[in-house]
Amino acid sequence: MPVVVQKFGGSSVADPDRIRAVADHISRTCRRGTQVVAVVSAMGHETDDLLHLAEQVSRLRPGREMDMLITAGERKATALLCMALHDLGVEADSLTGSQAGFFTDATHTNAKILEVRPERVRQVLAEGRVPVVGGAQGVSASRDVTFLGRGGSDTTAVALAAALQVDACELYTDVSGVFTADPRIVPEARRMSSVGFDELLEMTATGCPKPAMRSVEFARRQRVPLHVRSSFTWEPGTWVQEEDPSMEKAIITAVTYDTSEAKVTVQGVPDRPGIAAALFRALSDHDVMVDMIVQNTSDDGRTDISFTVPTEHLALAQRSCQDHAAELGATRVLGDDDIAKVSLVGAGMKSHSGVSATVFEVLAGRGINIEMISTSSIRITCVVRSDRMEEAVQALHDAFELDRPLV
Amino acid sequence: MPVVVQKFGGSSVADPDRIRAVADHISRTCRRGTQVVAVVSAMGHETDDLLHLAEQVSRLRPGREMDMLITAGERKATALLCMALHDLGVEADSLTGSQAGFFTDATHTNAKILEVRPERVRQVLAEGRVPVVGGAQGVSASRDVTFLGRGGSDTTAVALAAALQVDACELYTDVSGVFTADPRIVPEARRMSSVGFDELLEMTATGCPKPAMRSVEFARRQRVPLHVRSSFTWEPGTWVQEEDPSMEKAIITAVTYDTSEAKVTVQGVPDRPGIAAALFRALSDHDVMVDMIVQNTSDDGRTDISFTVPTEHLALAQRSCQDHAAELGATRVLGDDDIAKVSLVGAGMKSHSGVSATVFEVLAGRGINIEMISTSSIRITCVVRSDRMEEAVQALHDAFELDRPLV
Repeated sequence: MPVVVQKFGGSSVADPDRIRAVADHISRTCRRGTQVVAVVSAMGHETDDLLHLAEQVSRLRPGREMDMLITAGERKATALLCMALHDLGVEADSLTGSQAGFFTDATHTNAKILEVRPERVRQVLAEGRVPVVGGAQGVSASRDVTFLGRGGSDTTAVALAAALQVDACELYTDVSGVFTADPRIVPEARRMSSVGFDELLEMTATGCPKPAMRSVEFARRQRVPLHVRSSFTWEPGTWVQEEDPSMEKAIITAVTYDTSEAKVTVQGVPDRPGIAAALFRALSDHDVMVDMIVQNTSDDGRTDISFTVPTEHLALAQRSCQDHAAELGATRVLGDDDIAKVSLVGAGMKSHSGVSATVFEVLAGRGINIEMISTSSIRITCVVRSDRMEEAVQALHDAFELDRPLV
Repeated sequence: MPVVVQKFGGSSVADPDRIRAVADHISRTCRRGTQVVAVVSAMGHETDDLLHLAEQVSRLRPGREMDMLITAGERKATALLCMALHDLGVEADSLTGSQAGFFTDATHTNAKILEVRPERVRQVLAEGRVPVVGGAQGVSASRDVTFLGRGGSDTTAVALAAALQVDACELYTDVSGVFTADPRIVPEARRMSSVGFDELLEMTATGCPKPAMRSVEFARRQRVPLHVRSSFTWEPGTWVQEEDPSMEKAIITAVTYDTSEAKVTVQGVPDRPGIAAALFRALSDHDVMVDMIVQNTSDDGRTDISFTVPTEHLALAQRSCQDHAAELGATRVLGDDDIAKVSLVGAGMKSHSGVSATVFEVLAGRGINIEMISTSSIRITCVVRSDRMEEAVQALHDAFELDRPLV
């Protein structure tokens, strides 16, 4: 009998009605002759509510205790979903991360899976019952409860699908699949029926919020086909799988954006070896996460170095650069959080020249200034003013005709 | 170093402020040189909220899933209390029932403790840290999460105190101790500084709501001294311990009441052997819980049998009696849920005659009719009309001068 992992995110189980709707979907899948392993997140905004409670109680919030707290949310959801399934005549057993065999390291609040030994999941399946596993949780070698971090339920689902070697892993969410652009910005954005792992990874790395990047990486490594779909419409969504080289492919897959970063520019740096190294070593020592880095060529022996960081790291990054400005010989450090990254992603880019040129022409034609550029073999990213971001996304989507279905 | 178990009920940890107050109390106890093992219930009305959620999701509510759901409440509370302790510089580790070594049977929603192996609790103590244990929970032989039932946190605390052989078990609650009567009914009711296990058991069996009867039974069996006290005033409360025969004791300890029962009367039953047996066998087959039973002597070969049952069992009890009325030769079955039980409890009663007579005189003097009477060696219970209950409690409290401190 085929087996499928179905993962339901927080919005899919936000209230009793939605939990019953999910139970109904699982029972229909079972009736069609497919065994289901369910993975659930905490209900709606429960994780945020628990975090808020912790903030009210404590300034220090030890990771071990945060994990004990947060994982209570998924436990509730698993038990409630099992009850709803029993009501529909489907026997089901809730399993915590520990019961489902998720062994992790002890990095609390952001634990990594070391091994999945899903004996108990297999046993429940063998009894013809539905295992309902709490997402994003596991147990450490010291038998402490661990949490895999936000978005960790996707990782749980993929890891379980890999360990059980099931046919597919369905990620049910509040969007109906993966789109060529954010439909809130580009109304004619098209839902793709399939997308390759590499492309989706570039998309999630450049702002596409779902599915969680970590789970896509995991799925690619474990070769688990993903199906990203909606628990509100139950329509088929987007398949994520390895690219098939024989397939005719689009040159460009999607346009993404990210407004969560800020830019730092260190001006007047002497253009000689070792300067950039000193700068970024200092940033790294302060745990600042640096994303794009651009260094201009210089005429006069001095250059500007620009880089982007998460907005919440901006103050720290500026302070770190200021502290080293004299020592580096820099003249000025500027911070700017009114930027947006706009990215064009497509595996077909590799074999088609001229894509970059088109991007620059399209933006120039709209009078949108490009402040930084970075590229990979299947992506072009431009930093623009944040108030021009939506226009840039729409213009690129139009220019590459991403709304047209593939033939 | 002395060790004490401190148990905090739902009202004691109802919100972030209260959780911080509890942490402050634990930290003061530690600073005074006593090691603390904390046991906590779910916050405020959380258990009720979870039950309500389950009702909204499902008609069938399998016990295994209910236990997974309900125990999430205590997990949250343990983690939050640990965080608040860390903020005060007190290192603490939350432990689930399973981690704390509570092995139970598999009677979900009302599991019984089979064994407590608190290795991990001991280990945390040995490291100079505070173990914070989730109340009312354990793990079954099949490694499923189990719940000990409402009031089960008291049982957890007592069982842990017994297993660790600690010096005392403090039960913090929203009342400041055990009183000679409910202070809402008798304003001059006195908080006792100590009470014997036997007396407190009779009191809880006849309506005194706290502490939970099961935990008192457990404490008596394991000889664990209890200290019932308030987490709102932090004042010393009532010690519960074995009676010391050398001590001067009050004749009467307290007046209790219970309005949760109803009365069934089966009239005109032939007064011959086997009739009562047949009647109560039938009730037992229907799982009706029968409390007091009174059979009048008869003049004419026929008698009336009256008994009390929990009000929610009244309809079922009446139906069961009706069904057997013809067969038993009974003439009529009456149900009455406007009754109250008023009880006088005191270990000194054994050695002082005349207590019953005084009770009957006091009630007669007020024109309060006694409908049923039952006694044990340290208790007299009278059934009266429910609208006379408060007056009866007050009158008995006055008559036996229970407001007077012991000399």
